[in-house]
Amino acid sequence: MNYSMIFYILSSVLTFEGVFLLLPCIVALIYGESQGLIYLGVAAASIILGSIARLKKTENKVFYSKEGFVTVSLSWIVISLVGALPFYLTGEIPSYIDAVFETVSGFTTTGASILSDIEVLSKCTAFWRCFTHWIGGMGVLVLILALLPISGSYNMHLMRAESPGPSVGKLVPKVRNTAKMLYGIYIVITSAEIISLVLAGMPLYDSMTLSFATVGTGGFALLNSSIASYNLSVQLIITLFMLVCSINFNVYYLIYARKFKDALHNEEMRSFLIIVLSITVLITINIRSGFENIFAAFQTALFQVASIISTTGFATADFNLWPEFSKALLIFAMFVGACAGSTGGGLKVSRFVILVKAVKNEITSIIHPRCVKKVHFEGKSISDNMIKAVLSYLAAYVFIVAVSFVLISIDNFDAGTNFSAVMATFNNIGPGIGMVGPTGNYGAYSNFSKIVLVFDMLVGRLEIFPMLILFSPRIYKKGI
Amino acid sequence: MNYSMIFYILSSVLTFEGVFLLLPCIVALIYGESQGLIYLGVAAASIILGSIARLKKTENKVFYSKEGFVTVSLSWIVISLVGALPFYLTGEIPSYIDAVFETVSGFTTTGASILSDIEVLSKCTAFWRCFTHWIGGMGVLVLILALLPISGSYNMHLMRAESPGPSVGKLVPKVRNTAKMLYGIYIVITSAEIISLVLAGMPLYDSMTLSFATVGTGGFALLNSSIASYNLSVQLIITLFMLVCSINFNVYYLIYARKFKDALHNEEMRSFLIIVLSITVLITINIRSGFENIFAAFQTALFQVASIISTTGFATADFNLWPEFSKALLIFAMFVGACAGSTGGGLKVSRFVILVKAVKNEITSIIHPRCVKKVHFEGKSISDNMIKAVLSYLAAYVFIVAVSFVLISIDNFDAGTNFSAVMATFNNIGPGIGMVGPTGNYGAYSNFSKIVLVFDMLVGRLEIFPMLILFSPRIYKKGI
Repeated sequence: MNYSMIFYILSSVLTFEGVFLLLPCIVALIYGESQGLIYLGVAAASIILGSIARLKKTENKVFYSKEGFVTVSLSWIVISLVGALPFYLTGEIPSYIDAVFETVSGFTTTGASILSDIEVLSKCTAFWRCFTHWIGGMGVLVLILALLPISGSYNMHLMRAESPGPSVGKLVPKVRNTAKMLYGIYIVITSAEIISLVLAGMPLYDSMTLSFATVGTGGFALLNSSIASYNLSVQLIITLFMLVCSINFNVYYLIYARKFKDALHNEEMRSFLIIVLSITVLITINIRSGFENIFAAFQTALFQVASIISTTGFATADFNLWPEFSKALLIFAMFVGACAGSTGGGLKVSRFVILVKAVKNEITSIIHPRCVKKVHFEGKSISDNMIKAVLSYLAAYVFIVAVSFVLISIDNFDAGTNFSAVMATFNNIGPGIGMVGPTGNYGAYSNFSKIVLVFDMLVGRLEIFPMLILFSPRIYKKGI
Repeated sequence: MNYSMIFYILSSVLTFEGVFLLLPCIVALIYGESQGLIYLGVAAASIILGSIARLKKTENKVFYSKEGFVTVSLSWIVISLVGALPFYLTGEIPSYIDAVFETVSGFTTTGASILSDIEVLSKCTAFWRCFTHWIGGMGVLVLILALLPISGSYNMHLMRAESPGPSVGKLVPKVRNTAKMLYGIYIVITSAEIISLVLAGMPLYDSMTLSFATVGTGGFALLNSSIASYNLSVQLIITLFMLVCSINFNVYYLIYARKFKDALHNEEMRSFLIIVLSITVLITINIRSGFENIFAAFQTALFQVASIISTTGFATADFNLWPEFSKALLIFAMFVGACAGSTGGGLKVSRFVILVKAVKNEITSIIHPRCVKKVHFEGKSISDNMIKAVLSYLAAYVFIVAVSFVLISIDNFDAGTNFSAVMATFNNIGPGIGMVGPTGNYGAYSNFSKIVLVFDMLVGRLEIFPMLILFSPRIYKKGI
């Protein structure tokens, strides 16, 4: 293990977080909030400590994929522990564990909260809370790759470990340019949403914070009623951007590169839209009787489906009160999740499609044992190793959900609450059903359960293996 | 597809079922019940129709694994539709769909019931109900292979399609002798339980029916209180035999062949016993305070764990009232299930162990991308194809559970009930939690949901792929 290189990158991460923490200081300055001083203190400490630590130069350039995974996991732990400090030090979240839960929930774009009243938060804290979604959505290491002049073989390993999806492709030959391109698209989408919301009559501060929470597919909001009390045009804008940010960013690169046909033929995007539309129509029929007209039912259903499948977690309705069939469909949407290469979480549509095809293939191979047929996705044949990786991913997913479910059951809340709490954190959605539903929160869980759920959020965001590798004794063996 | 051969085997299955239906006639004769005439009628009709149909000789001996899977699936559908007739014709189950549910639940050794009062059943009906467990436990086609003088390449395909587990081995070189050996062991274990129960003071009729339900790991009982009102020695005997029948029957063959060391080193059995013991200890600690002493708590916990993990489904306590941690552990046990090659259902311990090892292997391959390591099980290295098959099995399992859960949610019962109903039928356990818990039943579900659950029971018993293949249009194509 190349510890000095890992230390160097972690120091850079700390410095970057310090710079980000200056943003809430500006918000505090504008609104004249004294909490800004605490943000300033944490920002200064991070920048100074990070910069000093970065001075220690490393000669060893050996950097394999295991180093990439370990670096990414540790980076996320560091930004969460540091990012939680202002919540704790301002006293707005009195328990440090709770503050860490809220921060991890922010960076992993989960949006699960331990707060019962978010309207009492200061402007700068509410801003920082939503801004963590934006940083975590595209990934802090992807940003570092885009901005720092570091070269070498290791940047692809970092990118692969942080970016979601079964296979991470480069948009352009250089990793650094790919990272820049991704952040470019990300900033354009964010700006588009901010402008749309301002045009829909929302104040700039609200538009910015909500846009950060939407394009990161996070789900932290400014009001206790989430999005329910905003007008229809705001709800439609947010629905649109939740869906936009659930689609593989490769599609937007293809549009940018004027390869419209390729963009249109993206198999993952098409599958995603078919799933969204099918579930929305079924829910609309199921909840129709409770609404004035079918349009209102469809709009509410679409918002909720987009919110869940994009793993954002905003709410305009308390779907806890919906019929069980609609709730079951939402749980199914939780399981599928967004597209790979988007800011959304979950299993990912591409994995879902590959799994369905792998099962079909298994059936064919039973009917015709001597007929070797390959699974195809996005027009290419998928290697057996990739299929094994996707299937192992599902197995690990099932194990982690099962073990977490058993562990948090110790708190003795009902099974529906516990199961949906695990699904909602692991898939980075936010609200579940029951006690942790859209009108509830995670505050009642014990510290032990909160730590389990924090782990689930990180494991879900980093797609399981980077975090699991941290617990593998093999990587700490000398000389390996 | 060799339709004439499939037709020939289905006719044999029908004849055999007719012979089995004579047993409840004998019971009716002893107890002087008029329902016996209906059993006699159905038995006679099955034997006559089956024998006539068998006369149609087939020249085509081509029989591949797809024919094996289709034959097994259709056989199970036929025995269920015919086996349900006496329940319906005697009027003891007034709805034919309910009667089919009860029969499928019997043959698949699920033990889920739509009856709210089983003590009003006639003796012959209660006997037939429990005896279906015994037939289904080892499998009707395995019995046909053991008894009928049919030879040819196809008997291995039939055996493989009906026997549970990721890989079906022959105990002895000839399939027919293997089938005989399996039924021999099965009969010895059944007799041992009957004798034990009689010695514990139970009447012969009760001992026989309960033994059929135990060794088939079914779960239908004679009293509405299941096993709770029997004395301690009966409960201990049943606990023992539930565990005995959850272990791979290969182990008993090894004992018979005096290969004690090999029997003791069976990896699947050891893993199974470790899982049973760990879960039992955890539950004992969790429910300790509700019992007089720790032995009583341990005994109750062990009975319940054995009942769930063996997928029998007997109850001595209403675990619905236990703390959520214990319930979560029981749901985990539902998921793991019994050993392959036993009469129990579920995912199977061997698949569970292979999945855990596959995930570990995936982690290693990420840490050391160039290091190719094989997964080992039972001292042998597992082929990549087998791993892919086990992983695809899990994927199919997850999909079927998810889709079934969504479909039965239309009835609008709570999510806990629906999820556990799917898990309890798919894994052939019987009782779930909530409305379908140990003191409840499946009667309140709509006919549509009952058909979904019937499908789940069959899919679970036949290990997914045989039933799925029935729905694949490819197998009906001419010339294939």
